[in-house]
Amino acid sequence: MLNIASFLDIAAPYRAIFLDSYGVVKNYQGLIPGAPETIRLLREQGKIIRILTNDASRSPEQQASRFAEQGLPGILPAEIITSGMMAKLFLAQKVKSGRVAYLGTTAAASCILQAELPCVPVGSVDLENCADISAMVFLDDEGFDWNTDINKTVNLLNQNNIPVIVANGDKLYPVTQSDVSIATGGIAKLVESILNRKFIHFGKPDTQMFNYAFEDISREGNFMREEVLMVGDTLHTDILGGNKFGIATALVLSGNTHSKDAANWISSTGIIPDHICHSIVG
Amino acid sequence: MLNIASFLDIAAPYRAIFLDSYGVVKNYQGLIPGAPETIRLLREQGKIIRILTNDASRSPEQQASRFAEQGLPGILPAEIITSGMMAKLFLAQKVKSGRVAYLGTTAAASCILQAELPCVPVGSVDLENCADISAMVFLDDEGFDWNTDINKTVNLLNQNNIPVIVANGDKLYPVTQSDVSIATGGIAKLVESILNRKFIHFGKPDTQMFNYAFEDISREGNFMREEVLMVGDTLHTDILGGNKFGIATALVLSGNTHSKDAANWISSTGIIPDHICHSIVG
Amino acid sequence: MLNIASFLDIAAPYRAIFLDSYGVVKNYQGLIPGAPETIRLLREQGKIIRILTNDASRSPEQQASRFAEQGLPGILPAEIITSGMMAKLFLAQKVKSGRVAYLGTTAAASCILQAELPCVPVGSVDLENCADISAMVFLDDEGFDWNTDINKTVNLLNQNNIPVIVANGDKLYPVTQSDVSIATGGIAKLVESILNRKFIHFGKPDTQMFNYAFEDISREGNFMREEVLMVGDTLHTDILGGNKFGIATALVLSGNTHSKDAANWISSTGIIPDHICHSIVG
Amino acid sequence: MLNIASFLDIAAPYRAIFLDSYGVVKNYQGLIPGAPETIRLLREQGKIIRILTNDASRSPEQQASRFAEQGLPGILPAEIITSGMMAKLFLAQKVKSGRVAYLGTTAAASCILQAELPCVPVGSVDLENCADISAMVFLDDEGFDWNTDINKTVNLLNQNNIPVIVANGDKLYPVTQSDVSIATGGIAKLVESILNRKFIHFGKPDTQMFNYAFEDISREGNFMREEVLMVGDTLHTDILGGNKFGIATALVLSGNTHSKDAANWISSTGIIPDHICHSIVG
Repeated sequence: MLNIASFLDIAAPYRAIFLDSYGVVKNYQGLIPGAPETIRLLREQGKIIRILTNDASRSPEQQASRFAEQGLPGILPAEIITSGMMAKLFLAQKVKSGRVAYLGTTAAASCILQAELPCVPVGSVDLENCADISAMVFLDDEGFDWNTDINKTVNLLNQNNIPVIVANGDKLYPVTQSDVSIATGGIAKLVESILNRKFIHFGKPDTQMFNYAFEDISREGNFMREEVLMVGDTLHTDILGGNKFGIATALVLSGNTHSKDAANWISSTGIIPDHICHSIVG
Repeated sequence: MLNIASFLDIAAPYRAIFLDSYGVVKNYQGLIPGAPETIRLLREQGKIIRILTNDASRSPEQQASRFAEQGLPGILPAEIITSGMMAKLFLAQKVKSGRVAYLGTTAAASCILQAELPCVPVGSVDLENCADISAMVFLDDEGFDWNTDINKTVNLLNQNNIPVIVANGDKLYPVTQSDVSIATGGIAKLVESILNRKFIHFGKPDTQMFNYAFEDISREGNFMREEVLMVGDTLHTDILGGNKFGIATALVLSGNTHSKDAANWISSTGIIPDHICHSIVG
Repeated sequence: MLNIASFLDIAAPYRAIFLDSYGVVKNYQGLIPGAPETIRLLREQGKIIRILTNDASRSPEQQASRFAEQGLPGILPAEIITSGMMAKLFLAQKVKSGRVAYLGTTAAASCILQAELPCVPVGSVDLENCADISAMVFLDDEGFDWNTDINKTVNLLNQNNIPVIVANGDKLYPVTQSDVSIATGGIAKLVESILNRKFIHFGKPDTQMFNYAFEDISREGNFMREEVLMVGDTLHTDILGGNKFGIATALVLSGNTHSKDAANWISSTGIIPDHICHSIVG
Repeated sequence: MLNIASFLDIAAPYRAIFLDSYGVVKNYQGLIPGAPETIRLLREQGKIIRILTNDASRSPEQQASRFAEQGLPGILPAEIITSGMMAKLFLAQKVKSGRVAYLGTTAAASCILQAELPCVPVGSVDLENCADISAMVFLDDEGFDWNTDINKTVNLLNQNNIPVIVANGDKLYPVTQSDVSIATGGIAKLVESILNRKFIHFGKPDTQMFNYAFEDISREGNFMREEVLMVGDTLHTDILGGNKFGIATALVLSGNTHSKDAANWISSTGIIPDHICHSIVG
């Protein structure tokens, strides 16, 4: 039913390749075997590469180092675009004073929120003395006590009417072949549901990240959207966003979307990739 | 704008009074001052009383004892109807084998789940060896580690296609004058959103609890629905459920619905109480 | 994967059988061939029968006549329980003055709304002079101009803060083997979404109809819930409602749920019937 | 509570002004009195102007002519950016063959869908012979029979798994001071709810339109985002989108958001404009 092709055949006509990270280049076990070879071949063919990731917990530099440690050297921080960078831009442009509260690790906060404003984990906020908290950021699902700090976030946001930013809208991430863990976006959704509010979400499928990446490669040459391929494992982020931005899309079956579910999910969501392949390897 | 009357005037024509517990008879500080006197007066007037509560964490016996300790003696366990009792009935009628997993305290489990089936907290479930888990119950927001055990619940329910019961659908409860805490129903909503499923919810506004209470008082005499008044502080549970069951409803402003919001909330939800009063006292 | 049994084998141990109408006893072409024979056999075995339908557009009398015309004589009006009857009870108990506006045919209005209050189709309401409209009912998807009258309903409900009743919560009904039509519940959902309100829905899966039917058969004898079987073609109305009310449930594959989808839908919704059969015939 | 300023004072520091059309420059009665004078003053101050509208039913040329007829000459088609243009770009980039079905007027189709592909109103689609329909577009709430054609759309989309585009996501538009009409986005929402799918929505609050406008003015000069002001009457489209794109936002109280509701809505949505004024006039 699915028309499955080889990744290199699919990629051949495109001049720029946007790759999701988790589920495409790596997974819970490390790099997808053969991924470095594929990326080397793409580069040899003169293609421009960008990694577009909704992982807002680490900076591009940290993610590049991690790729190198895992056996994929040569990815430059400038080739990595994270949803955290979008959130950081928003804060720089729209939040000019006060303190920024966050849920996440201090490492995530230090790399994402290194704006001029002081940052404070929700756990350290004093609810009796928080009128100067001017924005709230959901950064990561780790680094705090879920029970105490999610409840505290609800009460903080009931008191302070401030912009709330979700730096990674993903609801889930895989931790083993079969198990998943609730991600930042899932926790944000709980708080949205409790408060009956919608927060400001960054990351795919929003076209903003695609636009940022497209502007970025346009500094290296003149590109048409038809010359760009987005490669991802998730229909409602990678494929929907790529489709909406007007570039070609390829679904890989090496991550969130399994072979057995792909036809069914495509049909039930109406999010239709231009191409399908097992993985970026073969 | 609101037509506010005295509670005893409102209650006068009714022969049976259904009272929500939290926000009506008690709050985070203890009994609402004057509540015992009101209940004594209602009884003197020959009215039948029932407490209808979405608190599934304690048995009617425990809740009756707690009323007595707080200064309201004479409430019989048989006068208290909890959403946990509805969940318990469901389990007894529909789940006949296997083990029942739960999120909540062991105290809640012992009183609510005292069916014939063995119960196990999600934290103790071995995901490699759980094929005999035949139902899952959301009981309480306490008694487990939110991070570890909510994630484990997601993975358990991904593996086992079993009925999932939410014994208390409330999303929030107040812990101080201004602060709230996420309740069982909020946690269940997170898991429903992650799994893209709807669980089986018990408690108000479902008419089942009202029907149970009405059948119960009908054993003491012959009642028309028009002779029953539901008194509650929450529009979308107490008032919606009472309206739908066809009994009269009175909104009190001593709990979740504050004076300043009442007109606005009634108008925006379209859930219209027959009567409004400040509290059951005066 | 599905454990499919014969309907008569499934029904054997139960003393009362609740049947959905559309998709179970009849479909868009008329009676399901063999249905009259099955019902005759059930009666011969001494089983009590009730039809529980979310069709609020015709009275029990009209539905009984229609069964007889189509070749199924002997269904008494008293054996048919409609969601419209639940809505009618609500109006009688809770709406005591003013006029009731409705969307639907005049036939539906005349049989469902034959309360003491005058009824008026939304199309005839004068928005400049409608302060006496005291309730609104979504009855049927026919009998009015969708464009004009749905918009008028939105404006009426923006002006008058009144109870809004959905007499049939079904979103869809089949009109041929492959084609569907939007039902009253779908239209109500549109208006709810536009107004950001929730209306009062009657009909399955609400336990109220099950309770009404159970009380009704209890007048003919003493029944335990374990002795009742609900038979339906729709997971989220018939099966969910039956499960929640605590009776046994059988899914038939002759209506909304097709053989090829059943396992997948059961697994993805978590709504699990006790039994599955192709149809009530064989 | 609201800090309301004069529009010209608010606009003073910005070099480019993005204006929503309906509710800001015009309303159901025609131009907002004084709007032409304000726009003349902005131009005299050397500010660049763009109109960003979710009206996908008419082309920029048609909208410019209409402004002129109503008394606001001098708006160039090139200064008008519509959500329909975004939808048109998507179709050009992603849909390369087959026929495009649409709901809306033929005028809307002729100006929005003037791509190479043949277009066909849903009403003229033959469901027995529609395998070549390769995309579906929700264009407008007029030009078709709601009952027949919305149902036909549901059946078409059940048969053909194709991209579905919503060219205007607005759910409502005002037709008089007090009355509203359901817009394309509301109809699309009904069909999404019936099919349990999410379509591809274009228009504000999506940042794509803001980005298109920003790229457009960048061809006329070098702009920082901080130098751009978005002016709109709707929190969840104009203000949310502008905030997310990182430009300044001004809420006017001359359209969807009335003075009496503004503080409440800002607080309950958390969508916070940088500035508030009564209208662009004074």
